[in-house]
Amino acid sequence: MVKINDNYLKLPGSYLFSTIGKKVNEFAAANPDKKIIRLGIGDVTQPLTPAITDALHKAVDEMGHAETFRGYAPDLGYDFLRKAIAENDYEARGCDIGMDEIFVSDGAKCDSGNIQEIFATGNIIAVCDPVYPVYVDSNVMAGRGGSYSEITEGFSDIIYMPCTKENDFAPQLPEKTPDIIYLCFPNNPTGAIITKEELQKWVDYANEHGSVIIYDAAYEAYIRTEGIPHSIYECDGAKTCAIELHSFSKNAGFTGVRLGYTVVPKELKRDGVSLHTLWARRHSTKYNGAPYIVQRAGEAVYSEAGKKEIKGLVDHYMRNAAYILNGLKEAGYSVSGGTDAPYIWLKTPGEMTGWEFFDHLLNNANVVGTPGSGFGPHGEGYFRLTAFGSYENTVEAVDRIKKL
Amino acid sequence: MVKINDNYLKLPGSYLFSTIGKKVNEFAAANPDKKIIRLGIGDVTQPLTPAITDALHKAVDEMGHAETFRGYAPDLGYDFLRKAIAENDYEARGCDIGMDEIFVSDGAKCDSGNIQEIFATGNIIAVCDPVYPVYVDSNVMAGRGGSYSEITEGFSDIIYMPCTKENDFAPQLPEKTPDIIYLCFPNNPTGAIITKEELQKWVDYANEHGSVIIYDAAYEAYIRTEGIPHSIYECDGAKTCAIELHSFSKNAGFTGVRLGYTVVPKELKRDGVSLHTLWARRHSTKYNGAPYIVQRAGEAVYSEAGKKEIKGLVDHYMRNAAYILNGLKEAGYSVSGGTDAPYIWLKTPGEMTGWEFFDHLLNNANVVGTPGSGFGPHGEGYFRLTAFGSYENTVEAVDRIKKL
Repeated sequence: MVKINDNYLKLPGSYLFSTIGKKVNEFAAANPDKKIIRLGIGDVTQPLTPAITDALHKAVDEMGHAETFRGYAPDLGYDFLRKAIAENDYEARGCDIGMDEIFVSDGAKCDSGNIQEIFATGNIIAVCDPVYPVYVDSNVMAGRGGSYSEITEGFSDIIYMPCTKENDFAPQLPEKTPDIIYLCFPNNPTGAIITKEELQKWVDYANEHGSVIIYDAAYEAYIRTEGIPHSIYECDGAKTCAIELHSFSKNAGFTGVRLGYTVVPKELKRDGVSLHTLWARRHSTKYNGAPYIVQRAGEAVYSEAGKKEIKGLVDHYMRNAAYILNGLKEAGYSVSGGTDAPYIWLKTPGEMTGWEFFDHLLNNANVVGTPGSGFGPHGEGYFRLTAFGSYENTVEAVDRIKKL
Repeated sequence: MVKINDNYLKLPGSYLFSTIGKKVNEFAAANPDKKIIRLGIGDVTQPLTPAITDALHKAVDEMGHAETFRGYAPDLGYDFLRKAIAENDYEARGCDIGMDEIFVSDGAKCDSGNIQEIFATGNIIAVCDPVYPVYVDSNVMAGRGGSYSEITEGFSDIIYMPCTKENDFAPQLPEKTPDIIYLCFPNNPTGAIITKEELQKWVDYANEHGSVIIYDAAYEAYIRTEGIPHSIYECDGAKTCAIELHSFSKNAGFTGVRLGYTVVPKELKRDGVSLHTLWARRHSTKYNGAPYIVQRAGEAVYSEAGKKEIKGLVDHYMRNAAYILNGLKEAGYSVSGGTDAPYIWLKTPGEMTGWEFFDHLLNNANVVGTPGSGFGPHGEGYFRLTAFGSYENTVEAVDRIKKL
């Protein structure tokens, strides 16, 4: 008789964004006349830019002719894309990351969910609280959660690092030493950033304790402030302790195109074993590469035209972020984030919980956001709005919220 | 100090097709004047057909305009594709599978590697020997292998079901009851098929013992013989014991496009838990959907034009299969498969091992095949050739082999 993986049963409720989707669909069905504005899930709204669609069309044409048709991609990604990534995202920033340390994938969500597989079940993970749920859920599914407590709203075996107004949404080095540390900057969901000096402390800590940092840099394109690191490899010694995750979703608008990459430096070893080799084995055994046409679209992100267009996309969303930030401040909300990140993190009014404020906003302003508690217990009393709407919708949403 | 997942270290050598790729690249580099013909890896060579490229172009255009842009796909796939699959692959064959039991993914390799996650580590798996390596390797990585023996060339905790000439390459019901049974028909690598009556025995066995069958139907489009089941759900009771994996790689030539799907019937429960719910949770937590443009290409596979074109692709490859089968028979080889499958399984001449024959063929005929031992110890002494080359190359390869 087969036995199921009962770690799955420890997960409270369904995946956050699935729950939100269901709530919004129900509201929409019951209120077909209302114009709902979605600033909840971090999904982009601007179309793919011409450099990208041109590259996609060209690659589709290649796939339609025998001489230029491409079957299975190289396990770890096409060289043309890995080279463009290495040159633009690393070499240009003074980071010593080679193209053979870059693993192309179908997105940072998959990579952030799968990366834990190369580590033993018994490792202790540490996450920020609030946190992007995939880090926690994927580890719980793999048996690293321990038991869930409805009182702490957390798992017994996971180290939570509270990020609240009191510590300026910056995690503190934990008392108990974790084996694996998940960090995401610019942060999802709080929009907080980390300075190079602060990040260097984490790198030094990890090297000292033999921990590994999983660094999620999905939002680096939104950094505007000088001196904020775009990559953890800007810190000394990061190559012996850090894996970095990247997305094309938030810069180039690839949420529906699916492309990402993960950097595992060759110098990164534990138990005398190269993590690069383990991840390569994982990739070649359980993954078959991102579509050729999508990898060509990724390459176009780094073309001269592509860079210009993508800067335009990011500028667009950052104009939204500024509008939300200023509008909510004017309306008397306590807000943070939104200056180097596409997320605005606000304190819910009065004693409202995140889900109460969610319902309040959906019912009375027809605006969808994300309850902070969905990201962890220390997110309770907070709420996330994203800058990924159209400018018109963003303005309308903020104006509606102001009128509440 | 982080600990690695040392189950990875139990895997002998690297992933089979990575090894072959390296060997071939080395030979090519040393012999730049030789024309190498690749009949090794199961990768297609014919370009995407017009119905597919039209659908891709159209979807790319949609992605380039704000009104028709699509971001994150629904967790389990777009309805338009799930509906087309349910109607064409199931309803049309009299199988009662609903569109909400279909999970769209980026390919059958990923699904066949990931599906084991929803089961407990302690389950005993059974596989055919020889077998597609992903079933074994993904379970070993998850800790279900036990220890590897160089003598048996197998893992202590895995039940191997030998498929040899003596049993007509058909696995026998195992003596010890497995919890999870991997079956693939038409078979990779042997090209063997299973009758509905034989498959019914496995379904009855699984229902009786509470086992779950992972049924890999990636090659069903190649079935020519009447009465051979295209889906395990043609058998009575399969919905309470079987998960089915499908690929678009081998029918529509999507090896570089990446699309597949998995069926988990809602009736399939173990420990009182719906496996459908577990797989949905896995999908929504660790996966972000196949690209919109690729899902539209999948939809086009089921259009009238698409069906006609894809039949043409399969016919093309089956003409190759017939040519290989007949040519090798004429040359005195003992061969099987190739009538309802794109794979030809041949006995190596004399006492040659599979890798010896691999080198012999590469060096003297410049033809790449796959050593049977790469698929498991009972594949030793056999060799796989695929029908996925161009017709011209296939003819040339067979003629070269004949001259050896």
